[in-house]
Amino acid sequence: MTAESVAVGTELLLGDVEDTNSAELGKVLAQFGVLHLHRQTVGDNLERLAAALRLALSRSDIVFTIGGLGPTMDDLTREGIVAALDEELVFDQAVEDEIRAKLERRRVPFAPNQSRQAMRPSSSQVLDNPNGTAPGLLCAKGGKTVIAMPGPRLEFVPMLQGPVSKYLASVSDGVIASRTLKIVGMGESLVERKLEDLMKSDDPTVAPYAKTGEVHVRITSRGTKYEEAMSRVSPVEREARARLADVVYGADEDTLESVVLALLRRRGETLAVAESCTGGGLGERITSVPGSSDVFLGGVVSYSNRLKESLLGVSPETLAQHGAVSEECAREMAEGVCRATGATWGVSVTGVAGPDGGTAEKPVGLVYTGVSGPDGTTVERNEFPGGREAVRERSQKWALLQLRKRVSGA
Amino acid sequence: MTAESVAVGTELLLGDVEDTNSAELGKVLAQFGVLHLHRQTVGDNLERLAAALRLALSRSDIVFTIGGLGPTMDDLTREGIVAALDEELVFDQAVEDEIRAKLERRRVPFAPNQSRQAMRPSSSQVLDNPNGTAPGLLCAKGGKTVIAMPGPRLEFVPMLQGPVSKYLASVSDGVIASRTLKIVGMGESLVERKLEDLMKSDDPTVAPYAKTGEVHVRITSRGTKYEEAMSRVSPVEREARARLADVVYGADEDTLESVVLALLRRRGETLAVAESCTGGGLGERITSVPGSSDVFLGGVVSYSNRLKESLLGVSPETLAQHGAVSEECAREMAEGVCRATGATWGVSVTGVAGPDGGTAEKPVGLVYTGVSGPDGTTVERNEFPGGREAVRERSQKWALLQLRKRVSGA
Repeated sequence: MTAESVAVGTELLLGDVEDTNSAELGKVLAQFGVLHLHRQTVGDNLERLAAALRLALSRSDIVFTIGGLGPTMDDLTREGIVAALDEELVFDQAVEDEIRAKLERRRVPFAPNQSRQAMRPSSSQVLDNPNGTAPGLLCAKGGKTVIAMPGPRLEFVPMLQGPVSKYLASVSDGVIASRTLKIVGMGESLVERKLEDLMKSDDPTVAPYAKTGEVHVRITSRGTKYEEAMSRVSPVEREARARLADVVYGADEDTLESVVLALLRRRGETLAVAESCTGGGLGERITSVPGSSDVFLGGVVSYSNRLKESLLGVSPETLAQHGAVSEECAREMAEGVCRATGATWGVSVTGVAGPDGGTAEKPVGLVYTGVSGPDGTTVERNEFPGGREAVRERSQKWALLQLRKRVSGA
Repeated sequence: MTAESVAVGTELLLGDVEDTNSAELGKVLAQFGVLHLHRQTVGDNLERLAAALRLALSRSDIVFTIGGLGPTMDDLTREGIVAALDEELVFDQAVEDEIRAKLERRRVPFAPNQSRQAMRPSSSQVLDNPNGTAPGLLCAKGGKTVIAMPGPRLEFVPMLQGPVSKYLASVSDGVIASRTLKIVGMGESLVERKLEDLMKSDDPTVAPYAKTGEVHVRITSRGTKYEEAMSRVSPVEREARARLADVVYGADEDTLESVVLALLRRRGETLAVAESCTGGGLGERITSVPGSSDVFLGGVVSYSNRLKESLLGVSPETLAQHGAVSEECAREMAEGVCRATGATWGVSVTGVAGPDGGTAEKPVGLVYTGVSGPDGTTVERNEFPGGREAVRERSQKWALLQLRKRVSGA
């Protein structure tokens, strides 16, 4: 079974918007063993959109459209699909009623153009979109299937993981079993060297991917049944884990923050953060995990030196002698936030995120992360590559990694 | 002049790697007024790659390939180009010498398969790649041009900005001038209703795009000179601004946070945040702007009620009577963070981000944002759609919008 995706939007071609949806779709298709052989992107132009869909239908079993389902005149995906399938749009009163109800709950008036979203191809059924007004569409005709999904990521991803995955499970003729090991604290080339012989295997395949501050290793096999495919993945997973040892922090859907929170939850311990250069990003990362409130108390964003003193009790002498980006300051921040919040563990981050503010002695990328806990305080020094955004992200991950090591006693 | 891009790599179709290069290319093409009408993505398969290139050559003047120029057997772009152009690969000793010299400088041995990178289409000239061993290629034949560029971002972007931009400047017959107005606090369909007649124009074109919690309106014209094209954009921009009034917070590269920081900087005022459901995300958003430290002092992440009391001085009675997600609590948080930090302005966010914790009275998505300043404290209540991540992002934007209104006295 083959699939193809057609992303719709002039903003994609102009580079104003990154298309992250096509990659998300690719991952899900791989899970269901559906071959994703082509991707196309076209602008908000009916003729080119219809031509792209005709081409896709000529060579692929399932065609996904992404975007162009909004209420405006630029949103042409519905029209493109009926042109390619040679059918008509019909008005669906039930869809309009649903849109009206959603808008009412948000206290937004129903605009006349919103009725466009209640038009659907005559061969279609509607896919529920709890996160927006644009319904998804599934059209089955002449042995081919067209699935239309909304473009906003927060609408696209839930629809992909919900009704679309359900549909794929019902039609796919094979499965892919895979395990992704997640690694922080070892670079891609060293990971590759440790797994070199495993990477030469065709089944299961073993492939490392570098992410900002992390490396993921994906082990994959294909089969008719999940358990059968997984029985080839598991021994390789065990071998890879043995070779990589404690740099593997988790697998698959695990994130460093979810793993750390689970570890603390089991121990009945609490966590607080003291952030300087990350500006609140470490707290945001931790609280992105639903249910984090039973472990995470909060913390202090001490972006200015004044707040490092007044809210965290960092001593004026430390700031005068060593500066805010120093081992001493990171130590006092981590200890100070434990004192201020009563948390079992305090984690601090202070560094030079750039682009300005670097010196020969304290260059952009220099970051100190501290962890204070029942058995004392430790501080680590790092120099991270890659500009403000990357330095801030790597700092967060490094701080969590250090906390994980401390909590698990590694 | 029309252009099309063909990104090559099975990892793109599997979703293991995000294609950010195609968007970068799109931006540069727009600058030079080259119409980017199609994007394709294919895997490491010679037949499908050659077919994609033939299709691209049939409808576009310039065809860009991205990726597939490495030394391994999977790297098939060179072969795909000669198949589509119906010519041969020739060995280029000068290219191999250059590759040998580069590897020697890095103290990496020359592997036999590296010779593949010295093969090039007979109609091609070489584009220098100072950041890797894969040379870029430019093939001009029969009125069409194929430009092949390496996939790694750190090789792709410099080649795009260097020799490829130089080439585009030499052949392009126009430029695009555009202005993007950025809007928070009005939905896409209402924006469209206000601009409906302007959106019917062909020159300049006017198109709205929905983002999470924002709407962008892009006004675009094409001409032989930038000033000439911009002279058609400007009157429409003025008209759109007049109709949308104060929901337009900025244009082009502006973000809500950069605009608010600039406003406060001009007034010599400072800012602090008190965050509950956003967990630090508002602080991170503000500090993503380089140089934010002259305005932003920091703040408190009071994820637990205990910290709302101890660090922000929220009264136990307020929490007992009204709960943490309440107008009263948002008010006391905003006032408390001003007291704790000495900032001119304090902004607070407290809400139910979900997925759990919602009740009939306080559903998931209910958020209170407060702003405390020299002329008192205001609190706004919102119900945001779209799950935990969206609720958190929309809360941040809404809080900044409210701050902007307060500071500018609107």
